[in-house]
Amino acid sequence: MAAKKRHHAKPAVTGFDLDAFLASSTGLVNTALDGFLPAEKTRPATLHRAMRYSLFAGGKRMRPALVLAAAQACGGRLAEALPLACAVECIHTYSLVHDDLPAMDNDDYRRGKPTNHKVFGEGIAILAGDALLTQAFEIAAQARGWPRYPHRDLMLEIAYAAGSRQLIAGQVADLEGEGRKTSPAQLKYIHERKTSALLCCAARLGGMSANCPPVQLRALTDFGYHVGLAFQVIDDILDVTQTSETLGKTAGKDTRARKATYPAIVGLEQSRKIAAQLTGRAFAALRPFRGRAVALEALAAFLLHRES
Amino acid sequence: MAAKKRHHAKPAVTGFDLDAFLASSTGLVNTALDGFLPAEKTRPATLHRAMRYSLFAGGKRMRPALVLAAAQACGGRLAEALPLACAVECIHTYSLVHDDLPAMDNDDYRRGKPTNHKVFGEGIAILAGDALLTQAFEIAAQARGWPRYPHRDLMLEIAYAAGSRQLIAGQVADLEGEGRKTSPAQLKYIHERKTSALLCCAARLGGMSANCPPVQLRALTDFGYHVGLAFQVIDDILDVTQTSETLGKTAGKDTRARKATYPAIVGLEQSRKIAAQLTGRAFAALRPFRGRAVALEALAAFLLHRES
Repeated sequence: MAAKKRHHAKPAVTGFDLDAFLASSTGLVNTALDGFLPAEKTRPATLHRAMRYSLFAGGKRMRPALVLAAAQACGGRLAEALPLACAVECIHTYSLVHDDLPAMDNDDYRRGKPTNHKVFGEGIAILAGDALLTQAFEIAAQARGWPRYPHRDLMLEIAYAAGSRQLIAGQVADLEGEGRKTSPAQLKYIHERKTSALLCCAARLGGMSANCPPVQLRALTDFGYHVGLAFQVIDDILDVTQTSETLGKTAGKDTRARKATYPAIVGLEQSRKIAAQLTGRAFAALRPFRGRAVALEALAAFLLHRES
Repeated sequence: MAAKKRHHAKPAVTGFDLDAFLASSTGLVNTALDGFLPAEKTRPATLHRAMRYSLFAGGKRMRPALVLAAAQACGGRLAEALPLACAVECIHTYSLVHDDLPAMDNDDYRRGKPTNHKVFGEGIAILAGDALLTQAFEIAAQARGWPRYPHRDLMLEIAYAAGSRQLIAGQVADLEGEGRKTSPAQLKYIHERKTSALLCCAARLGGMSANCPPVQLRALTDFGYHVGLAFQVIDDILDVTQTSETLGKTAGKDTRARKATYPAIVGLEQSRKIAAQLTGRAFAALRPFRGRAVALEALAAFLLHRES
C-alpha cells in the first residue's frame, strides 16, 4: 500500500537517472536501427541514403524510449523490446518525411537540418517515406513474438496505430483543418490521432515485449494516450513560445499556417493547465505498476517540462 | 510421367475456363476488399474515399488472381488465400497512386480514370497511398497463418517484396533512369524489382496459404519471377503499340519520358521474343505441379497474349 499511496501524490521520479536511461536507450536504438537498415551503399544508394538521412537526423528517440521504458515497467528485457522500438521510430520518421512535403506542411527544416525532400527531391522523399513505413514491418517481424502477443498481434497493433483511422487520419484532419475554424473537440480528435496513437502504440508494444498481463496493457494504453495528448499540447505551446533555433524547426509555423492549436483556441495559460492535467492522468495510469514504472514516470515528467 | 511429359510441350490450358476463374476471383477479391477497408463514410471520409477510389478503379486484379491460382495449384482453399490476395492488391494500388504523382511519373490517367491526385489533390493522394500500404499489413494479419508459414513469415514476405530493395528500388531506378542511357542489364534490374518482386510475392503467398512444401514454394518463386519479367516486357511493348484508349492510360508515355524500355533498347521484335522466352520459363517452372497448376498456366498464357 505504501508504494501505491506514493503515486497518489507526486510521481516517484527522484533517484531515477533519466539522462542515463535516455542515453543508453538512444545508443541501443541507434545501433539496432543501423543494423536493421540496408547499408548506405546498398543499391539503390540514393534511397538508402535518404532513409538514413532522416532516421539519423538527431531525433530525440522519445518513442523508442517509451517502448523500452514500458518493457522495463513490465519486467521485460530491453533487448527483446528493441526491434519494436526501432519499428516505431521508422513509422515516426516516415510520417515526418511525408508530413514535411510541399503538398503537406511544406517544411524546409526539421531537427535543424534541411528536410528530406530539400536534400533528395520530392520523388525520393516520397519513396524514402514509403520504404521506412515498409521497413517498420520488416523490423517488427524480427521481434521474438510472445505467447500473449504473437506476430499477428504486433502487425495489427502497428498497422492500426499507423493506419487510416489513427496516425494518417490525424494528418488528414490536420491538412483539412488549415485555415478553418476548429472546435476544441475537433482539435482533440486531431491530437489523439496525430500524436497519441503512436505514443500509445509505443507504450503497448513495450508491454507486449514483456508478455505483460492484460491489466498492465490497459494501464500502458491509458498512460500512452494521455502522455500523447499532453505531448502534442506542449508541442503547440512551444511553437508559440520558442524560437526556431531552440526548436530546430521553423517556429511559429502553425500560427502562420492558421493551424488549429491549443494556444490558438483556448489560450496559452489554459493550454498549460490542460497539459499538466493530462500528464497527471498519465501518472495516475501507472498506479498498477506500484513504483516499478520509474522510467515511464520520469519520461512523462520530462515531456511535460521540455523546452524544445 | 504422362502428366510431366505434357508440360514439356504446350501448356495444358485447354479445357480450363480462365474467364470464369478470373470473374470468380475478381468477385471474391472485390467483396473481401470492400469488407477489409473502412467504409467510405468512416472518418476521415476524404481519405477513405480516396483509398477506395483507386482500389476500385477497375484494376484487372491479376496479382490477387495469381495468389488464388497459386493456392489452388498447391491444393489450398481460395477462402484461406483471400486476405493475402487482398493485401497484395493494396500494395499494388498504393504503388500506382504514388507512382502517378507529379514528383514521380506525373500521370493524369490510370485505368481510364483521372489519377488519385487529380481527383483528391497531392496531399491526400500521398496519404491514401500510405494508408493502402499500411492497410495491406492489417489485412495480411487477418490471414490464418500456417504451420510452415506463420504470420512472421507473411509479414517478412510482404515487407521484403514491397520494400527498399525490391518494389521501391524499382521505382527509384525507374525515376533515376529517365532520360539516361540504360543497359539491358540495368533494365532487367528495374523490371525484376518494379514488377517481378510483387508478382513473385503473390505466387509465393498463394502457396504459403496452402502450407505448401518447400519444393512447391521454389517452383512458385521461379514461376512468379519469370511471369513478372514477361509481364513488364509486354507492358513496355503495349506502351509502344497500343493507343491510350485501349490501355486506359496515356500511351507512348514511356517513349516521351525517355524511359528505359525493352522496345527502346532491343527493338520490338526482339522484345516479343524475350517475352515469349520468359513465359516459356514460367511454364517450365510449373512442372513440379504435374498438371495441377492449370489456373497458373492459363494466367501466364493470358498475360503473354493480352492486348491492354
